[in-house]
Amino acid sequence: MSQLPPPSVRQTRLGYRGEELVSGERAIPEETPVALTYDGTTYAVMMATPADLADFAIGFTLTEGICASAGEIEGPEIVSSDAGIEVRMWIPPERGEAVVARRRALTGPVGCGLCGIDSLAAAKTPLPHVTADPGVTLAMISDAVAALPAAQPLSLETRAVHAAGFWTPGAGLVAVREDVGRHNALDKLAGALAGKGVDPASGVLLLTSRVSVELIQKAARIGVGVLAAISAPTALAVREAEAANITLIAVARADGFEIFTHPERLASGPTTRTATR
Amino acid sequence: MSQLPPPSVRQTRLGYRGEELVSGERAIPEETPVALTYDGTTYAVMMATPADLADFAIGFTLTEGICASAGEIEGPEIVSSDAGIEVRMWIPPERGEAVVARRRALTGPVGCGLCGIDSLAAAKTPLPHVTADPGVTLAMISDAVAALPAAQPLSLETRAVHAAGFWTPGAGLVAVREDVGRHNALDKLAGALAGKGVDPASGVLLLTSRVSVELIQKAARIGVGVLAAISAPTALAVREAEAANITLIAVARADGFEIFTHPERLASGPTTRTATR
Repeated sequence: MSQLPPPSVRQTRLGYRGEELVSGERAIPEETPVALTYDGTTYAVMMATPADLADFAIGFTLTEGICASAGEIEGPEIVSSDAGIEVRMWIPPERGEAVVARRRALTGPVGCGLCGIDSLAAAKTPLPHVTADPGVTLAMISDAVAALPAAQPLSLETRAVHAAGFWTPGAGLVAVREDVGRHNALDKLAGALAGKGVDPASGVLLLTSRVSVELIQKAARIGVGVLAAISAPTALAVREAEAANITLIAVARADGFEIFTHPERLASGPTTRTATR
Repeated sequence: MSQLPPPSVRQTRLGYRGEELVSGERAIPEETPVALTYDGTTYAVMMATPADLADFAIGFTLTEGICASAGEIEGPEIVSSDAGIEVRMWIPPERGEAVVARRRALTGPVGCGLCGIDSLAAAKTPLPHVTADPGVTLAMISDAVAALPAAQPLSLETRAVHAAGFWTPGAGLVAVREDVGRHNALDKLAGALAGKGVDPASGVLLLTSRVSVELIQKAARIGVGVLAAISAPTALAVREAEAANITLIAVARADGFEIFTHPERLASGPTTRTATR
């Protein structure tokens, strides 16, 4: 395999401050097309930060529901070229057949006339009902959120990438992964957890981003029961978290957080009162 | 057509502050699957904020290079259902044939063995060389950036959506569109400009988001010469802006901004000095 590009670049640029132009540098994240292939056929081309790509490929395969465990995946083999990076995986025949069937349902044969309503129905995937019970308290959520920033080296350098982290009551922050794309950061984290043998049901998934519905779907497919995000969720993400039995925490900052779904999973601890305002 | 969902929702949630749980509400943006169809076949299903969908469909068609002008597009016809929203368009036969050929190149027939390297090559689209010269000065960039926040009603309400705006020396801020997705916000803006008959070469494209390569590609296809974003660009976006002859300004804040490519397009004005530090 040829060399991967570095995950960040020192870019020269002009700064304009106080009516003065000053030349200097800024560290910015790299972004590379990454083709994920199964059994020699491309499933998706994603724009991603070229780091932790084995985690990315394994995690994507799990969060998209293509395989049920990392043990089913042969590879990944990473091949770099001028056009981008190819990550090759091989999966069991029955998983491969399901991929082909899903691809057919989503795109249809070219020019077949598959209409919008059919496509919308095909895009809707059934969600598991998550039963995880990691034994997390309200105070632990604050601890988990507070632990994340120091573990984001690419963000500290560029201030322009997202992170996904995983925190457990027993071990604290066990893994953090970063990417220009928030979905990719979650996929990389899912792959890292699989590699470490950490059960996603055993702790809190931390996201630096807003929560769109696809992040909830990915979290549900790997069995995450508690998700805490720095920014706000969409209304559809809230409905999907409610349906999948995921505890969705968002707008998580140094001074507190907001619980949108399934607060019953969080033990409140002895000092907590509930008020209505 | 049935009623579209509202673009934002007042969501009840529990707030946790100072070890106290308080129930209350937060306004959050809606997110809906939107299928864009040409001549009865789905081209893409996007997750978008259900507002300005006609602008979205027209703009997407232009920024993706599917049609060269809004006049070529028949429709859009917006059809809402439980599964999501379908936006139907009809395009001239030669445009439709190009769409089918592009779709075939990107996905291949199902299970054909199209490998990652082929897919990466197919995903690479030739970029136009942008020749726009809107006559914008450095001081005008600051004015344009300062004008945007007050024109983002959904962001003011939810603090969780992106905006794309367009500012010209003659008319100031001529259009702003918002969406949970930053690509969608730009597509909606492109459609709005087409509807108003405003040439994207005549001013500054403003984005509240980070700048990934796809935003540069979309801007280039509609002829935008000057792009100013609140957040940072990726390294690939900088290279693509350089190649497409787009002036890329980013990290644009109240106290200044940074110019990553083609500063020669910006007139500096009489009070500006250039220093090296």
